[in-house]
Formats: sequence, structure tokens, C-alpha cells
Amino acid sequence: MTTPSSNDLAHLISRRDRAFGAGAPLFYDSPLHIVRGEGVHLFDNEGRRYVDLYNNVACVGHCHPRVVDAVSRQASTLNTHSRYIHEGAIALAERLAALHGPQIESVLFSCSGTEANEAALRMAQMVTGRKGIVCTDKTYHGNSDLVSRLSLVGTVQPESEAVHAFPFPQKYRPIRPGLSEDELCDAYLERLEDAIRRFEQSGVGFAALILCSIFANEGLPDIPRGFMEKATLMVHRAGGLVIADEVQAGYARTGNWWGYEVSGFTPDIVVTGKPMGNGVPLAATATSRAILEAFRARTRYFNTFASSPLQAAAGTAVLDVIEDEGLRENVASVGAMLKQALIDRRGASAHIGDVRGTGLFLGVEIVKYGPDHEPDAELAFTLSNKLKNLGFLTSNAGALDNMIKIRPPLVFSHADAEEFLDAWDRAVAQLHG
Amino acid sequence: MTTPSSNDLAHLISRRDRAFGAGAPLFYDSPLHIVRGEGVHLFDNEGRRYVDLYNNVACVGHCHPRVVDAVSRQASTLNTHSRYIHEGAIALAERLAALHGPQIESVLFSCSGTEANEAALRMAQMVTGRKGIVCTDKTYHGNSDLVSRLSLVGTVQPESEAVHAFPFPQKYRPIRPGLSEDELCDAYLERLEDAIRRFEQSGVGFAALILCSIFANEGLPDIPRGFMEKATLMVHRAGGLVIADEVQAGYARTGNWWGYEVSGFTPDIVVTGKPMGNGVPLAATATSRAILEAFRARTRYFNTFASSPLQAAAGTAVLDVIEDEGLRENVASVGAMLKQALIDRRGASAHIGDVRGTGLFLGVEIVKYGPDHEPDAELAFTLSNKLKNLGFLTSNAGALDNMIKIRPPLVFSHADAEEFLDAWDRAVAQLHG
Repeated sequence: MTTPSSNDLAHLISRRDRAFGAGAPLFYDSPLHIVRGEGVHLFDNEGRRYVDLYNNVACVGHCHPRVVDAVSRQASTLNTHSRYIHEGAIALAERLAALHGPQIESVLFSCSGTEANEAALRMAQMVTGRKGIVCTDKTYHGNSDLVSRLSLVGTVQPESEAVHAFPFPQKYRPIRPGLSEDELCDAYLERLEDAIRRFEQSGVGFAALILCSIFANEGLPDIPRGFMEKATLMVHRAGGLVIADEVQAGYARTGNWWGYEVSGFTPDIVVTGKPMGNGVPLAATATSRAILEAFRARTRYFNTFASSPLQAAAGTAVLDVIEDEGLRENVASVGAMLKQALIDRRGASAHIGDVRGTGLFLGVEIVKYGPDHEPDAELAFTLSNKLKNLGFLTSNAGALDNMIKIRPPLVFSHADAEEFLDAWDRAVAQLHG
Repeated sequence: MTTPSSNDLAHLISRRDRAFGAGAPLFYDSPLHIVRGEGVHLFDNEGRRYVDLYNNVACVGHCHPRVVDAVSRQASTLNTHSRYIHEGAIALAERLAALHGPQIESVLFSCSGTEANEAALRMAQMVTGRKGIVCTDKTYHGNSDLVSRLSLVGTVQPESEAVHAFPFPQKYRPIRPGLSEDELCDAYLERLEDAIRRFEQSGVGFAALILCSIFANEGLPDIPRGFMEKATLMVHRAGGLVIADEVQAGYARTGNWWGYEVSGFTPDIVVTGKPMGNGVPLAATATSRAILEAFRARTRYFNTFASSPLQAAAGTAVLDVIEDEGLRENVASVGAMLKQALIDRRGASAHIGDVRGTGLFLGVEIVKYGPDHEPDAELAFTLSNKLKNLGFLTSNAGALDNMIKIRPPLVFSHADAEEFLDAWDRAVAQLHG
């Protein structure tokens, strides 16, 4: 017998399958019906509380009162397009640019990471006069025709004329065994160089390397020392640009403003998205004034909903909260504690393969028994569901789908972390039950 | 000497040029610094009131209290992604689908008209297994790599392997002179057929015809009788789909829910955007469940900010207001009055070439003296600026940039129309001053 609430859920899922088409993604073995959010907590339709360790959009916490207030006030004052002058978006662009080095001067706002990556790729193609884009083999940068051609190249889809992939750099499952760290770095650089060279040989030409600054979708790998700096140098020597996709990596997620500070390189174009508006659709492509103006001259780009007073209000409130509540410091402190605690717990189960990440973006690889740390995506899904049943929301992700992805709102506290670690211990113990 | 306020404006423009890159579009000879909106009115930084005859995003009026309230309440309750279940977006999708015929069952939400058109084009390509898209020669459907290939094909950019254009149907500047209406219809159909046939001959194959249901960017032409119905039949016979871009045409703009009701055809895929959220970024691609599910199966499409509780709250409030305030009826009534009044005023100036459109989306062609009604884009810009200086916001648009585009919020009243007509008379008289 099903309970009334599971009947309700089944009915909602059936309505959803028709309204959105079956196949619209849902989390967990039994999906959650979430109706309220507050800080690091989400609540379902029966009032059950979940600690959110997944959502980076609500970066300053679900329904943060300062963001809600800013959005409400702006929505009741003015919200229109950017062909009139309004100071809000101008000031937000200035503030964003100032959070980068001097090479970043100007900002193109848009409504999604996909739109922002589209603009970045097209800027690079226009400025270089060449088409070739290099990405990693296990990445995702968005859902448009152009950007989706970068998804999982070499596995789900083949390389195309203008998209080449190279294996993402990592130390846990190295491209070749038995190399020193310097040799491993060189091995990945060779593959990058090969991807670039093939564009030069084909006549397509090389425009840009695009990557998530911390390789989030790949699984937050530990990167061979020096790789990012050398890769950037290689790209520039080949006349290309480096695009840092900071949609997941940026906005204090690592305890730094930007992921590229962690992995150690200087991008020419920076793309931001998810956390920028704490839920108000807002994304940005930031670069030099010369690059942005070349793009504007060629495209006459206009985006109806972008650079609006509403985006500006939400985006400004988010930056205010990050600064006023000391969230970079919080992320660094809680993240370091949580990572160390997870490392300390590795011995609790032979299924815990590796613990990686920085700040409040951590990943734990789930593996099969044995010396080869063979990935176990099914078990990671099981663990994520066990954690959910205990009231803690994570997901399985990474190149091999076997990584528990831990990415709570930036306001996640030491106490929240302790609470999660208790649940972690119980859930991991259940894997052996 | 400049006044303090013009200094302020110059300073803001200089900041904007750096922050956004010079070339970010602005309206009017001297841009407006808008700080507040209410109903059909916008107010600048010096408190000057403008009657808005341009903005279709704020479709139920700037800062409509019911929309503001719905957005504020939802932002303070829950705003997260759609991998949890939430009834809001499901119900909005159901309601949207119900506003179309039975061929439209399911909805893919996104954040912009560009994203929604991207999805529509890719759906058509996936379902047909062919790539060729036909559009008109004077259109604009968005700013992504794929969608921008449809912009002004044959003028600004050439046809490409997968994009062919045909001349948009019109009676005012017909493709060939001296034809009867039926012959003119056939002449345009021949050009459409030729665009389709060239895809079949090249091996690219024909996937879809995409068009704005009322050819808004082309200039709201009067369409030869029967064209749209016959074009749809031709597309279907060739195995293609018809995509109606209702970003401008839909949402009661014509006094009907959809522009395709005015021009008389039944689309397979319907794209909506701008007015859906009264300023909250929200767009949709609506089609049959089978087509959407084929797309989902192929793409695993996910859009972080889309199908969110916030989008649902804004979108639902907008539909509520359109229905509860009888806005379709208002649009039909005020629009008919305004159009007739503008027609009646044609004789006031030999520069008034033609008055077209339906509901609260009207266009007036500005032409040079003489029998050839040669377009005068410069004079249209002048007239638009004169109207702005009198406190009435329009723009010049259309295939030849010589059309005064009149597209106020749907709450535009008979009194607002009378007020505008007074200004119109004065501005038109000034053209001869």
C-alpha cells in the first residue's frame, strides 16, 4: 500500500512527465518534493528538513533576506532593458571587473552560463579569426548547439571540426602510470599541444582553450604541479585565448574569489553564472575592453533580460553578503575542516577512494574493493541516496559518476559540517550493512 | 555650458562604455537615464515622466503589484532548480500548453528567447534527422552562435550550408509589382519552395521553417491572403516542422493569445519569451510530448535557472493578470482605435507611408516625398526622438529601419492612446517645421 503522500508524489511526477516531457532530470531514487528553503536548509512538502550540500546557486543561502529584499525592492521600482541607462548594472560590472586582475576590464551580462560561454567562445573566435576550441574530454559547459559540442568529447560525442579534446589533468588516475609529477604534467601538456597542433594542421586554426578552473565536472582532480601555468603559456604562444569557466569554481566557492587562483593561471576571458544572483538568472562574460568591443562591433549583441536593474540588484546584494558576512573566510575555514575530517575517515571503508577539492567544493571518490580503486558509480548513487534519507543532500558526479559531490551554500557552518559528518559516518557504515 | 545633469549623464555613459564595452546598444540621440517604472510610465532621474510605447517585456505594466508580490513571496519562500519536484513550473507548463491547440502538449522552460529558439531549432533537427533551417531575409531570432546565423540572411550575412532565407511576404513593397494578391502569395511561396528544394538538392535536408508569426522585425507586413496556411502545408509536405517565434507576437500582444491566430496557421513548435515573466527572465519552447521527449532523450537538457519556482511565480502572475484584467480585450479595443486614428492621420504628412499591425503592436512606415514611398530611416529616427522629447517612447525598426514601432504594455488605455495621438500630431507637424 502506498501512503497518500507517495500517491501525491506519483501524481505530480506523472503531471511533470507530461508537462515537461519524460526525461526531465530528477535527483535521487525517490525524488524530493521541496517547498521551502532557508539558509542551508530545504524543506519538503511534509515539513522534513534537509541540509543542502549540493546547491551553489543559492550561494549565500536559500532565501537570504538581503537578496530577497533587494530583489523585491527593485522589482517594485524598475525592471527594464539596458537600452536605457541605469547605474545598477554598470556598477555591478565595475565591481566584478575589479575582482580580477588588470586584464579583465569589461563585462557582458547574460542570463545563463550557457549564454555566457557562447559569448566567450564567439569572442575568442572573432578576436583570433580562427575557430578551433580545445576542451577536456569529460566536461560540460552548457546546453546550446555550440556549447553542447564541448560535452563529453571522445565519449558521448566525437571530436568535431572545430572542437578537439584532451584528457583532463589528474594525479589519481594518471594518463600513464609510473611517472613523476613533472613527467605527468608534461604528458598532459603533450596531449594539449597535440589538440592545438591538429587545428593548425587542418587549417581550422586554434582560437581558445576553455576549461573549468578547478575541473568540477571532471571530478575536482588534483592537478599535476605547474600544469595550468604551462598550459596558459602554450595557448598564448599558439595565438589562442584561455577561457576560465568559473560558473562552478568562482564566487568564493574555494575560499578565493576565483578558482583560477587555486589552480594558478591567468585567464583572458572569465565566465560566471550560477551563484551570481542567488537564483535570479544572471551570468557574465568578463574580459578586456578591446576583446568585448571587438565582439560588440561584430555582433551588435543585445540580450533583453540582461544588464537589467533586477539582475543588478540581485548581483549586488550577493556580493555585499559575501563580503559583509565574511563568506570567503567561512568557506576556507569550514572547507578545510570538512576536507580533513573526510580524509581522516577514509579508513572507515575500503570504498572511500580519494578525497579532493578546495573550500566548500569537495569530492569523495567511491570505489570497489581492491587495489585498482575501480570506480563504483552505482555505490556512489546508493550512498547519495542514503545520505538523502538521513536528511543530507549531495549527488554523485565526476568523470566516472562515482564522486560524491559536496558543494553546500557558502554559509555552511562548522556546526553544519559536524552534523553532516555524523550522517556521513552512518551512511558509510550502511554500505557494509 | 552643460548642465550638471548632462554632466552626470556623460559621466554615466563613459562609465558604461568601459564597463560594458563601447557599442552596447542605447536608444535615442540622447540616451534616457530611467530610474522608475509604473504601469505604462517610465520616469527619468529628474522625475520626468515618459509614456512607454515600446516595452513588451513589462507586458502587464511596469512593476505590476501582483507580479511584484508573487516574485517577492516566492523569492522569500523557495527558489531552486528543477531536479527537485515543485508544482509551480509544472502547473505553468500545463496552463501554457492549454492555451494552444492539441498539438502542443509539453513545455521546455529556459531563460531567454535565444535559448528557447536554440531548443526549437535543435528539436526540429533531431526529430527530422535533417539540418536545414529556412527563415526570412530580414529576421532576428536571438544572439547565440546557431540562432544568430538566422539574422538578416542575404544582407548582413550570407546564407550558410544549413540556413536558407526567403523574402518575407508583404503587400506594401511586393516582391514583384503588378500581381494580384493570389499571384503575389504564389510568388512568395515559390521562393519558400526554392529555399526548401535547395536543401534537398544539397543533401543537407530540410528540418524547419522558423518565423515570427506576425513578422515583427520585418515590419509587421500585411501578408498576402492564404500565405501562412499554404506555407505550413508546403513545409509539412516536405517533411519539415513549422516553428512559430511568438517572443514578440504572443501573450495577448495582438488581442489574441498568439500571433499565429492572426496570420492563420498552426505551428508544430511555439517559442515564447519576453513578456512571460514581466521582467523575470523566462522563456519556453512548447511542442508535442513526442518531440520534446525525443529532444530530452538525445540531449539530457538541463537549464539551471529554468523551471524554477521563481520563474513559475512570475509566469503564473502574468497569466493571472492578463486574464483577470481582461487585457486581451483591452488590447483589441485600444489597438483598433489607435490603428484607425493613425490611419486617419496619414494625410497629415506625405512622410507617413503605411500603417500596419494588429492589437497593441503597430508600425508606421516613414517615407520620403514622392510616389515610390522610398523608406526614410533617418526621418523615422528623427520622429522617434521628437516623440521621446515630447515624453513618448517608441523606436524605429523594421526591415528598412524606417518603421515607428508602437508596442506599449498591454494595459495601455484609451486615454493613454489619446495622449499619444496628441504628441504624434505635434511630432509629425515638426517634421515639416
